[in-house]
Amino acid sequence: MLDLNLNDLIARSLKEDIGTGDITTNSTIPADKTITGRFLAKENGILCGMEVAGAVFAFVDPSIELVWMKKDGEAIEKGEVIATVSGNARSILTGERLALNLLQHMSGIATRTHEAVEKVAGSRARIADTRKTTPGLRVLEKYAVKCGGGSNHRFNLADGVLIKDNHIEAAGSITKAVEMARSNIPHTLKIEVEVETFPQLEEALAAGADIIMLDNMNCADMTKAVEIVAGRALTEASGNMGEKDLAEVARTGVDIISIGALTHSVKALDISLKFKF
Amino acid sequence: MLDLNLNDLIARSLKEDIGTGDITTNSTIPADKTITGRFLAKENGILCGMEVAGAVFAFVDPSIELVWMKKDGEAIEKGEVIATVSGNARSILTGERLALNLLQHMSGIATRTHEAVEKVAGSRARIADTRKTTPGLRVLEKYAVKCGGGSNHRFNLADGVLIKDNHIEAAGSITKAVEMARSNIPHTLKIEVEVETFPQLEEALAAGADIIMLDNMNCADMTKAVEIVAGRALTEASGNMGEKDLAEVARTGVDIISIGALTHSVKALDISLKFKF
Amino acid sequence: MLDLNLNDLIARSLKEDIGTGDITTNSTIPADKTITGRFLAKENGILCGMEVAGAVFAFVDPSIELVWMKKDGEAIEKGEVIATVSGNARSILTGERLALNLLQHMSGIATRTHEAVEKVAGSRARIADTRKTTPGLRVLEKYAVKCGGGSNHRFNLADGVLIKDNHIEAAGSITKAVEMARSNIPHTLKIEVEVETFPQLEEALAAGADIIMLDNMNCADMTKAVEIVAGRALTEASGNMGEKDLAEVARTGVDIISIGALTHSVKALDISLKFKF
Amino acid sequence: MLDLNLNDLIARSLKEDIGTGDITTNSTIPADKTITGRFLAKENGILCGMEVAGAVFAFVDPSIELVWMKKDGEAIEKGEVIATVSGNARSILTGERLALNLLQHMSGIATRTHEAVEKVAGSRARIADTRKTTPGLRVLEKYAVKCGGGSNHRFNLADGVLIKDNHIEAAGSITKAVEMARSNIPHTLKIEVEVETFPQLEEALAAGADIIMLDNMNCADMTKAVEIVAGRALTEASGNMGEKDLAEVARTGVDIISIGALTHSVKALDISLKFKF
Amino acid sequence: MLDLNLNDLIARSLKEDIGTGDITTNSTIPADKTITGRFLAKENGILCGMEVAGAVFAFVDPSIELVWMKKDGEAIEKGEVIATVSGNARSILTGERLALNLLQHMSGIATRTHEAVEKVAGSRARIADTRKTTPGLRVLEKYAVKCGGGSNHRFNLADGVLIKDNHIEAAGSITKAVEMARSNIPHTLKIEVEVETFPQLEEALAAGADIIMLDNMNCADMTKAVEIVAGRALTEASGNMGEKDLAEVARTGVDIISIGALTHSVKALDISLKFKF
Amino acid sequence: MLDLNLNDLIARSLKEDIGTGDITTNSTIPADKTITGRFLAKENGILCGMEVAGAVFAFVDPSIELVWMKKDGEAIEKGEVIATVSGNARSILTGERLALNLLQHMSGIATRTHEAVEKVAGSRARIADTRKTTPGLRVLEKYAVKCGGGSNHRFNLADGVLIKDNHIEAAGSITKAVEMARSNIPHTLKIEVEVETFPQLEEALAAGADIIMLDNMNCADMTKAVEIVAGRALTEASGNMGEKDLAEVARTGVDIISIGALTHSVKALDISLKFKF
Repeated sequence: MLDLNLNDLIARSLKEDIGTGDITTNSTIPADKTITGRFLAKENGILCGMEVAGAVFAFVDPSIELVWMKKDGEAIEKGEVIATVSGNARSILTGERLALNLLQHMSGIATRTHEAVEKVAGSRARIADTRKTTPGLRVLEKYAVKCGGGSNHRFNLADGVLIKDNHIEAAGSITKAVEMARSNIPHTLKIEVEVETFPQLEEALAAGADIIMLDNMNCADMTKAVEIVAGRALTEASGNMGEKDLAEVARTGVDIISIGALTHSVKALDISLKFKF
Repeated sequence: MLDLNLNDLIARSLKEDIGTGDITTNSTIPADKTITGRFLAKENGILCGMEVAGAVFAFVDPSIELVWMKKDGEAIEKGEVIATVSGNARSILTGERLALNLLQHMSGIATRTHEAVEKVAGSRARIADTRKTTPGLRVLEKYAVKCGGGSNHRFNLADGVLIKDNHIEAAGSITKAVEMARSNIPHTLKIEVEVETFPQLEEALAAGADIIMLDNMNCADMTKAVEIVAGRALTEASGNMGEKDLAEVARTGVDIISIGALTHSVKALDISLKFKF
Repeated sequence: MLDLNLNDLIARSLKEDIGTGDITTNSTIPADKTITGRFLAKENGILCGMEVAGAVFAFVDPSIELVWMKKDGEAIEKGEVIATVSGNARSILTGERLALNLLQHMSGIATRTHEAVEKVAGSRARIADTRKTTPGLRVLEKYAVKCGGGSNHRFNLADGVLIKDNHIEAAGSITKAVEMARSNIPHTLKIEVEVETFPQLEEALAAGADIIMLDNMNCADMTKAVEIVAGRALTEASGNMGEKDLAEVARTGVDIISIGALTHSVKALDISLKFKF
Repeated sequence: MLDLNLNDLIARSLKEDIGTGDITTNSTIPADKTITGRFLAKENGILCGMEVAGAVFAFVDPSIELVWMKKDGEAIEKGEVIATVSGNARSILTGERLALNLLQHMSGIATRTHEAVEKVAGSRARIADTRKTTPGLRVLEKYAVKCGGGSNHRFNLADGVLIKDNHIEAAGSITKAVEMARSNIPHTLKIEVEVETFPQLEEALAAGADIIMLDNMNCADMTKAVEIVAGRALTEASGNMGEKDLAEVARTGVDIISIGALTHSVKALDISLKFKF
Repeated sequence: MLDLNLNDLIARSLKEDIGTGDITTNSTIPADKTITGRFLAKENGILCGMEVAGAVFAFVDPSIELVWMKKDGEAIEKGEVIATVSGNARSILTGERLALNLLQHMSGIATRTHEAVEKVAGSRARIADTRKTTPGLRVLEKYAVKCGGGSNHRFNLADGVLIKDNHIEAAGSITKAVEMARSNIPHTLKIEVEVETFPQLEEALAAGADIIMLDNMNCADMTKAVEIVAGRALTEASGNMGEKDLAEVARTGVDIISIGALTHSVKALDISLKFKF
Repeated sequence: MLDLNLNDLIARSLKEDIGTGDITTNSTIPADKTITGRFLAKENGILCGMEVAGAVFAFVDPSIELVWMKKDGEAIEKGEVIATVSGNARSILTGERLALNLLQHMSGIATRTHEAVEKVAGSRARIADTRKTTPGLRVLEKYAVKCGGGSNHRFNLADGVLIKDNHIEAAGSITKAVEMARSNIPHTLKIEVEVETFPQLEEALAAGADIIMLDNMNCADMTKAVEIVAGRALTEASGNMGEKDLAEVARTGVDIISIGALTHSVKALDISLKFKF
């Protein structure tokens, strides 16, 4: 994972967490003190964020040493040691909170994604994310979704076309909207159309849509929609999927199930850092 | 709420969401089209983020008009209209996702905080946040905690002293750590000491600690600790409080209950934006 | 055209051009002097950059008034007045050079693109740009290509898949490379494969490539390739197209002709700004 | 060449080129794959940009190794190997396009400058650049002009005084404008005055101008102007010099010939990077 | 001392000092020339800024070697060698001015602070700084105050409460202002109230103020105030203390004497850098 | 005065001063409270910084109204009202400290410069600044020098050539150093040479130096040097001029006296802001 904004994120977040200096540590811990710590899983889940946590410590002090026992995407169990960190005590304490905050957040996403993926195992459906991400963390969160076994929807409004009701209404019809898009966008992009009814579905297919988003349909309708599409386009189930029975949704035969809750309602995975002097 | 980094956050997050341009909207919606939308509560909760959402739209296009029916900190009910937005269609669609992502996230925090505050109603305990916030969003998240009726712990490592086990070990003793801190820090700051045992508690009080953090104690021990302190310092309950019976914790008589989960495990409050052309 | 980085570009470029202050103007022109100027076409071409030039002046001084007689994408003729600018003399002189530099550069690109588009008129071929753009100006340059009647290739390495020889060699075969890409990328993106031979072409088609880039083929081979593809994928002619007979290339039946020279070898269109006091 | 903004330029341009990640490379090339490549001249010219290209790769991955056979300012011939690059494949492919875009652009400028310098060889005239540079690249472009054997005009409006018609009109006369400038500017700067007529020339000399810009004069008039000046000031020929017979201009005896086209109308020098796995 | 903004400050200040390049050095000194220099004290004082000066040179060129004979906070005497620097000549000359400007400024502050501390030696009074610092340098200046033996007041408006006349007037009374503050601020912060009269003093104490600022009182009144407070709060003398007899002020028994002039009226300590080729 | 970095400076400095929010003001002053204040001179001096102070308030809140009774460069007397400010109370208090810090600093420089200018009145000497400025504030400080009646030396290492002993030693001789510089620099810049002896002076003049810096010479030697130069170059007196008898230096006939202390040892001019509710 390469995120060209990662160092900016780290710098900004460290300033946010440290302000003008860690006055407790600077008052009580000698400048040359060294320390060793262990990252411990406090509950079961999927690890995500080791590279990012490593970048945090490297940013603070390149001489800090991290040894990882687990890799991003691997399952971790309550009580397991995930990694050890050793080096200058002040430096490690400076990076500790930010490294943990990111590790717990990203592992929380990977874990929830993994649970969703397990539920649709055996079906053709891929679990995908959405644009409902935490401002500033989209690349990290979408990486976490992949670590959990999910797949990514478009990263931003420039690298995917998704024609929704507003666009259709402004353009006049699905047909016109698809035509307008096709003549304006890079030829490297597919065109996705959101539909709520079967006539809309037929029109979108006739217009040559590459992907059909089935918005807020029940499973019976989705099953029928998949039959109508018959492989002429990809089908995507969407609409509060975080609260649906995913196995049932998968049985409709859709290609993609996109779930906003993967990233907008994250439960941090409990990971702690314990020190030994 | 004034956040001097807010415009940077908005600019950065818009770039993240929009990339090199919203190709769907630019292809299908005329440049001079106007639109009206309504923010709708899809579930009950506490509103938070109206100023921030307003700043997003003002950043994108100062001519967008927002009218709010509700204010930050007020309860909103499923089905209620929270605000209306009207103006240039392309501009509004450009800001839509970011405004919603922030509004749902902040309202989610305010709502969860409010639930916690309700549980300790009638006690002396204040519900407080921690440094376990989402990188880049700390000021907004701490503001949301206040909107939910909670109170803030320190914002960063420079505006509060919290002496933990590592500091004590490095300094030699609680007494020495408190002394070292007192002689180094601005005289405007209080000193908080984390204790796990009663002897530590006694030492911290003797050293003149202003605040005692009772870390991972059960309620019986906390009750005893509060009696020992007897008003000589503030007492703070800490340690996975997100999973505790808060009413019971409050009955121990502690002054503050700090809960990391308020900000590290946020469930977005469902708010939608529906348009009319 | 919305470019979220435009204000940063303007600020940076003004600092580059002005340094610590325009000492000539500040020494000789009174602070309250007003001035009127006319942008004049010194040669025939396609106008591009009016919005950007307007943003430059608005950045320097919002009270400067610009009136445009021509719009982006319109033909301008030698001697024509394109726009007038009026307001504070120091402000206008501050923005003059940068506004002109951008206007001439973008109009140069639009003009050259238009010439290429004219050459393939009547064919199915679209003229497209590449990633061979000027560092820092990609969004502006790709906008200029569209103003000249061309179309855009992918904006960056994240919003399009282009499998080249290096990727094929590393993956083992075209088939494997396409498979690896398909399982990793957002489902909203097409897959393009660069081929130099007919067996490669056959393999790419069999693997399900959405777009075939015909790299450095002569026109006879391209004609044959288009026949083989037979509508199963888009075809793109590539390789020093800036020096080819575009009409002949278009007659091969390819869908896209991508030309790096549109943006890497720009001849500024001569536009001047003449003042009247 | 030290450009304190170079790393910013590289970071910004990489983000522009890579977006949220090179999905093709990341899908098909293993993370630990190594690669070797050779920069090849595809046409004759003057090399410029090796340091900058090196900085691009060093920014992406400090372990990439570059070996240069040629140095900035040296002639390169079609078919020559300019440099080799070896290291991690993903890293090299990440930097490839930006390194090439800069190398080709800067070498294009150096080559054109060199051609101009050759044309005036034997005369006293220096070939100089102007402020008609590409926004964001001025320092690099002016460096390229020097590599081609040219010399630099002022870098920005603060490090040189150039009194033009607008300044003269506002000040009242050339004499007054020169006086006003002299009393306001740092004593380390010379004063240049643009003249179009002989009376203006006489007035500028009398006012003590250090440099006279002969604007849009024909060669006969420039010859006469140089005679009048008689060494009392430097003389500079200006005005669409990119389209003039430079040898003829040089024979007028002017000290400097400044050419906007050196930087506003750049033809990239064709340099490619070929890989071996 | 860790200042997360230090590298930004250095980058910004180097650009300010170097502009587009050190044309004198680049013209006259070979790129591979090495040089050795010695930092010399030209007057007596307290050294401050060695880390910062080191960071300047490390930023410019990590291969520059600095050896320090003195440490921050130590007394230096006229004629003493403070440090040696050796490495590439161009690099060292690039960093020279900025390193010296910072070293002289910070040592000037440390020296003046030390003089003030000496004057109150034997009393309970601590010498403290204020928010009257040089924009952009607050963290460095407050560090210098500590190197001189002084102590820091709050770093910004978020990490300390100081209720002044405006706040009191708006709130209605000291009592109300203190109450309003207490219910809104993090529990980790003390509350300071500025008083000018004895009734105000009594009210502030009754309201539970943690710190009393005695604003512009004469020494007799301050003595009386300290008696009234009787240890119930800290007392701070304030108001043009830079021009007062500090020993006399200290004899009033106040805990803190805060002096704006420590940072708003700095006399640089004369330190030079002499080279040997 | 236009400083393109001014808004960045203000944003950065406000963050430095305000941190995560002015908790005192936000707790005690209602959001809609308005206020009026008067800037008062507390001592005699030269005003400088009104534009900058205005920009601070405009940045914080464009609805704040400032009315100035005095302009930059004008004398102000103890007790005089310099300006009034009125508007939202929270906004004004947010900008207050930064506006005052800048106004006092810049006025301090203007005042000290003015004193120096007065001392050399009647002579040909101009009082000039140096590069010994406060990091981050150079443009503002050099503007203040001009407001005090002084003149500016070069702004940075790119807009002036100053050949010192190191350059001479590396180049081999003054003659060679001047030649090397002349062939490398823009033709718009003069060449200054620092000399300590008469033979050096003769060599510099013979080499065609435009300006001679007389470094650390006594007044007798400077008088002799000025006679030797006899108008062939400008002469500049340098070396701890802040501690010299400036009238005596001026009588040597030098053209420029440059004084580092104008900006490295600033005494803030006492200006206060008094409010009325």
